[in-house]
Amino acid sequence: MLKYYYDLMSQPSRALYIFLNKTKIPYEKCKIDLARGEHKSDEYSDIHPFQQVPAINDSGFKLFESVAIMRYLCHKYPDHVADDWYPKDIAKQAYVDQYLEWQHANTRFGCAMYFQHKWLIPRMTGSPAKQANVDKFQTTMENVLQHFENYWLKDSKFVAGQEISIADILAVCELYQPAMAGYNVFMDHPRLAAWHELVKLELNPELDEANVILNKIIAKQNMSKL
Amino acid sequence: MLKYYYDLMSQPSRALYIFLNKTKIPYEKCKIDLARGEHKSDEYSDIHPFQQVPAINDSGFKLFESVAIMRYLCHKYPDHVADDWYPKDIAKQAYVDQYLEWQHANTRFGCAMYFQHKWLIPRMTGSPAKQANVDKFQTTMENVLQHFENYWLKDSKFVAGQEISIADILAVCELYQPAMAGYNVFMDHPRLAAWHELVKLELNPELDEANVILNKIIAKQNMSKL
Repeated sequence: MLKYYYDLMSQPSRALYIFLNKTKIPYEKCKIDLARGEHKSDEYSDIHPFQQVPAINDSGFKLFESVAIMRYLCHKYPDHVADDWYPKDIAKQAYVDQYLEWQHANTRFGCAMYFQHKWLIPRMTGSPAKQANVDKFQTTMENVLQHFENYWLKDSKFVAGQEISIADILAVCELYQPAMAGYNVFMDHPRLAAWHELVKLELNPELDEANVILNKIIAKQNMSKL
Repeated sequence: MLKYYYDLMSQPSRALYIFLNKTKIPYEKCKIDLARGEHKSDEYSDIHPFQQVPAINDSGFKLFESVAIMRYLCHKYPDHVADDWYPKDIAKQAYVDQYLEWQHANTRFGCAMYFQHKWLIPRMTGSPAKQANVDKFQTTMENVLQHFENYWLKDSKFVAGQEISIADILAVCELYQPAMAGYNVFMDHPRLAAWHELVKLELNPELDEANVILNKIIAKQNMSKL
């Protein structure tokens, strides 16, 4: 049986949660509560040597890194995973891979660093956010959003083509993260906003389910749900 | 014909250069001189929208992101690429993918940031290196090197198993980058040093050829060649 270790506070955990539920791959939920430090236990180190989420244990085969896990699941469970998620066609797959490699130092880095400096670090340290850092990472993030407007979504409905793929699941989960810090990336970015509507149609109700905690935090700040 | 756009000053450019020459995939060398700003031309923007290296144009199919390009070449040119480089076996391939995803925020980020803050930024700005930044990224990099010692190379000859794969090519090229700033990552890391000897045996003479510029810079600092 496939065991899935995750915490919905983590954006790649949310992505994989959506993917597993959407494709109906049978799995066992193994929640790892980051706030309670459950990822730091010796037992969990045996699942993920670097004590992070998400990770899987598929009948003894252990794997971490969300994107590697998604590719593995696409190969391992072809009866559950429609071809569009990670196309077998060499060129189409390469376009999905191109985004998946690019996002690490861009979507993920930009959005996560903004969230951390604006929201997480002040809460963890009890000190106010350092505005210079917030401004720096807002610029990094804005640059990423411009790349969505001017390249990734310029001529296609989805990030890596005309069909939704695992690239879109990972993208939307990273792009939601700054919302907890009060930044809605879909405002003032018309192509991103149009893509977001398509993604919601394709990924709901699983997308909303994965975002339950995130939307509670957003609601506390009197912002509208994503 | 496959066109390869690269500059050997760039670590992923070196990795793909080694891979193309090692596998003898026929290609045309298209050098993009970063120091002369050739990546900023309108003509090159048509190849790589974000004006970086490396990139390819395979008879009209354009692709960037070195790891995505490597996967594409493995799929597209199976007669040239032995299975070990990117195994078809689902579990073996997942282990290669696991490293390839992990390395972005770890090997690549740690080594590149150390190099930039210790060596590149002082040379570009004319100001001395900021020691606090150098120290911070040295700690980040050392943490990565410990992960090689205690996890990636603990029970296997190569990064993702008992055979060399594209993961090792990308790893060695990122791990060489800090050498230009006077930091030899193989010192005091016995598993990394043993792995390095194996990698040199497997990848030479292509590895040395890709490192011609890097070794010239290292020689100027009276350090021994890697």
